[in-house]
Amino acid sequence: MLPTRTLKELAAYLGGTVQGDENLAVNGLAPLENAGPDKITFLANPKYASKVAETGAGAVLMAPGGERYGRNVIEVANPYLGFAKLLTLFYTQPHPPLGVLPGANISGQTTLGENITVYPGACIGSNVTLGDRTVVHPGAVIYEGVSIGADCVIHANAVIRERCRIGNRCIIQPGAVIGSDGFGYAPDGRSYYRIPQIGIVVLEDDVEIGANTCIDRAALEVTLIRRGTKLDNLVQIAHNCQIGEDCMIVSQVGVSGSAKIGNHVTLAGQVGVAGHLTIGDNVMVGAQSGVPGSLAANAGYSGTPAMPHKDWLRAMAVVPRLPEIKKTVSALEKRISELESKLK
Amino acid sequence: MLPTRTLKELAAYLGGTVQGDENLAVNGLAPLENAGPDKITFLANPKYASKVAETGAGAVLMAPGGERYGRNVIEVANPYLGFAKLLTLFYTQPHPPLGVLPGANISGQTTLGENITVYPGACIGSNVTLGDRTVVHPGAVIYEGVSIGADCVIHANAVIRERCRIGNRCIIQPGAVIGSDGFGYAPDGRSYYRIPQIGIVVLEDDVEIGANTCIDRAALEVTLIRRGTKLDNLVQIAHNCQIGEDCMIVSQVGVSGSAKIGNHVTLAGQVGVAGHLTIGDNVMVGAQSGVPGSLAANAGYSGTPAMPHKDWLRAMAVVPRLPEIKKTVSALEKRISELESKLK
Amino acid sequence: MLPTRTLKELAAYLGGTVQGDENLAVNGLAPLENAGPDKITFLANPKYASKVAETGAGAVLMAPGGERYGRNVIEVANPYLGFAKLLTLFYTQPHPPLGVLPGANISGQTTLGENITVYPGACIGSNVTLGDRTVVHPGAVIYEGVSIGADCVIHANAVIRERCRIGNRCIIQPGAVIGSDGFGYAPDGRSYYRIPQIGIVVLEDDVEIGANTCIDRAALEVTLIRRGTKLDNLVQIAHNCQIGEDCMIVSQVGVSGSAKIGNHVTLAGQVGVAGHLTIGDNVMVGAQSGVPGSLAANAGYSGTPAMPHKDWLRAMAVVPRLPEIKKTVSALEKRISELESKLK
Repeated sequence: MLPTRTLKELAAYLGGTVQGDENLAVNGLAPLENAGPDKITFLANPKYASKVAETGAGAVLMAPGGERYGRNVIEVANPYLGFAKLLTLFYTQPHPPLGVLPGANISGQTTLGENITVYPGACIGSNVTLGDRTVVHPGAVIYEGVSIGADCVIHANAVIRERCRIGNRCIIQPGAVIGSDGFGYAPDGRSYYRIPQIGIVVLEDDVEIGANTCIDRAALEVTLIRRGTKLDNLVQIAHNCQIGEDCMIVSQVGVSGSAKIGNHVTLAGQVGVAGHLTIGDNVMVGAQSGVPGSLAANAGYSGTPAMPHKDWLRAMAVVPRLPEIKKTVSALEKRISELESKLK
Repeated sequence: MLPTRTLKELAAYLGGTVQGDENLAVNGLAPLENAGPDKITFLANPKYASKVAETGAGAVLMAPGGERYGRNVIEVANPYLGFAKLLTLFYTQPHPPLGVLPGANISGQTTLGENITVYPGACIGSNVTLGDRTVVHPGAVIYEGVSIGADCVIHANAVIRERCRIGNRCIIQPGAVIGSDGFGYAPDGRSYYRIPQIGIVVLEDDVEIGANTCIDRAALEVTLIRRGTKLDNLVQIAHNCQIGEDCMIVSQVGVSGSAKIGNHVTLAGQVGVAGHLTIGDNVMVGAQSGVPGSLAANAGYSGTPAMPHKDWLRAMAVVPRLPEIKKTVSALEKRISELESKLK
Repeated sequence: MLPTRTLKELAAYLGGTVQGDENLAVNGLAPLENAGPDKITFLANPKYASKVAETGAGAVLMAPGGERYGRNVIEVANPYLGFAKLLTLFYTQPHPPLGVLPGANISGQTTLGENITVYPGACIGSNVTLGDRTVVHPGAVIYEGVSIGADCVIHANAVIRERCRIGNRCIIQPGAVIGSDGFGYAPDGRSYYRIPQIGIVVLEDDVEIGANTCIDRAALEVTLIRRGTKLDNLVQIAHNCQIGEDCMIVSQVGVSGSAKIGNHVTLAGQVGVAGHLTIGDNVMVGAQSGVPGSLAANAGYSGTPAMPHKDWLRAMAVVPRLPEIKKTVSALEKRISELESKLK
């Protein structure tokens, strides 16, 4: 039997208010369409408000002031956030601490926190620090001198190179590479001379890094990802970049060297950002855009080269009609020539 | 000495017909230009039909009805497919079953099929099922509860996360990640709250996944890749996507969350597909296109935003001439103003 | 105390000339703004020439003929290259040879050079050759029959598949995959038949491969990357490609099958190149461009489809004004019709 929670308990956990039977108990979360009486459901999109009347759920999580249709309801200001928190409550558990398992390769002089787990096949170099409750999955490789905070998860086959520093509650998905060499070469006229990349990468607290994403170490100092920023899969962050707090960097984005990105910036999928520029706070850049220069804060941009998003929408609406416009212009030219000859 | 096969044997294997000496034996495959008398060659592109006259090959694989120039020929309906099948016959061998090799890390409670191979450095979690003849290369990591069918190849350093299910005859290239967490966060006004990704990935039979490609697990249910679909390298498939049967997803394509893609769809290199849309059966999308909304079946599309492929070709032909058109329009404006003033 | 070098020693190392006190000793490199008297600084960009007057550095590396402001100077033809070489001199050291460490998995019949290092968790298949001083980091997997030259670094979790050949002084960043199967299938009318990829990848001397980059093995013969070429992270090189010498292939570029790229070519970030084409020597392709056909040597190109770079710049300047042009054309049409009716 699944463990249950009363609506009263759930409302307290979510900071919400019960309307209806606060002693009703549920054992999980389900969509409006197929929830049974032992489940709580949620209304995040007001478009579906009428479905509350028909749901078979025992209770509904919704925004304050909505029509209850006589249901037991927990009202919370942000039902989508409440849904996420109930998912965590009902369906996730902390990783049980297993210690250093046989088959893990750990060098001397590591500093291991309490209640950690290091799986078989993980390799940890010398002078590494692992914070409390951090989990290192099989095949993850942590080079010498790395420090990792508490409550981190380093997934299988992720690589963290020498001396990089990772904050608390960071999650590194499988195959991600933190601290690869920046792509820096000095042309010598004929060929390329490799510029040693002696800097590091710093990830602040609550940063999450997607599968097979790459973050290059700085040439001299630090490639920095600030608190709360999330990177999706297959993202490229080049050397010396600084990415602000609470940014969302979607899959396959590439950011060139020494770019400075503000806080709360969203770069949609496959965006490319040139180097040595600044992107202001709260900027949103549309998918596949190419950003060749700095972007002012608090605005949306799209296109290659990027322009204000609305301008881009209007321009793109014309593109399929270009052949027709070209034809029209040619016809007009002819008609004007005729008029001109008549008036000569 | 290489093992040989008679034309009769090869024709039986390919479902073709011999014209000429069916007892002639060959020991391999070579191009028209440099094949010797102990080799069979092939004519896949009719453009090169006259080369059949000059080839030194002992025999030619070609479509029925072509000019034989007196050669020994195996006629098959699809000579390119025949070429691929002969490559398999002459140059590949099943992997010898080696069992679980020393240095492999296998948890308890795994169910291992017959004639499997698990290499040193591979890590297999608890409650994993491996089908008959499946090969797991070094450094591959299979989390707990995964099931993998028969005749699969899991290449080095690939990662398959918890509870994902993989069909028969699947090939996972090195470094691919199956079942990483979907990129789902609920904004809480200031920062982002992680939405637990409790679903899985299912790959049906005959699916192949390219090197360093990433397929995210669903938030709640299943990210699904149907039978026979092939993904190239560095592809991103976001959470909750459904990809149909026999699709070709070329390198560096990104598909956003909850997209539904039909059967026999081709997405060329670097295409980006937005989330929560539908792409119909037999659609082809040209390289680097961006697909912002649903696409009707049985058609080709290109561009960002994507439009019918022919419209895109015509529009792109105009783009380099835009400066000239702009100039012409300005000149026309002036000429009209002059005409207008004359007629006032 | 840091080891020091006199300006005389440094000038000899760099092939430069001292102006001032050749016996002055420095112990490292620092930027113009914050270098102290025990450091050498450098002036690479003439824009900052006046800063030489104010720097606290003990000496300055600069181009011949610049204003010394009374400083001790080493003159070199290429100060940026000199900077890179001094970084190497002061801040890098050869990897100490550690041998085959416990926890490394090495099959029989490998040929190991002198002074190599193989870390725990690395897996090396049978019949592999490793050159002198080569380092294989944890989790790197080298399949059977691979040969790797001298002075190479194979970083953690990189994968080199069977029979590929790697030259001297190559660096493979973490997670890179060399020799994955090419994406080749023969349609059989309903589904796809896998074409065995029996070729290999060859990397010549001084090639460097970025993190999580993928290079597919050839179908029949060789995918070739020539001497001195550098690939950034997350690049895709498809089967049968040939990339020339001293090319720079920036992050997230994708090159399709059988493309032939000349020497000294630069492909900027996220460029896509179609298959079966030729790109001439010294070509530069701008970021995010799509190259559908062959490109002549010694020129720059941009856009999708790619056109001469200057044409692209001019065309893109018009794009945001398309809605206005469309409106103008409609207005002109109207005005002409009026003129025409007046003149009827």
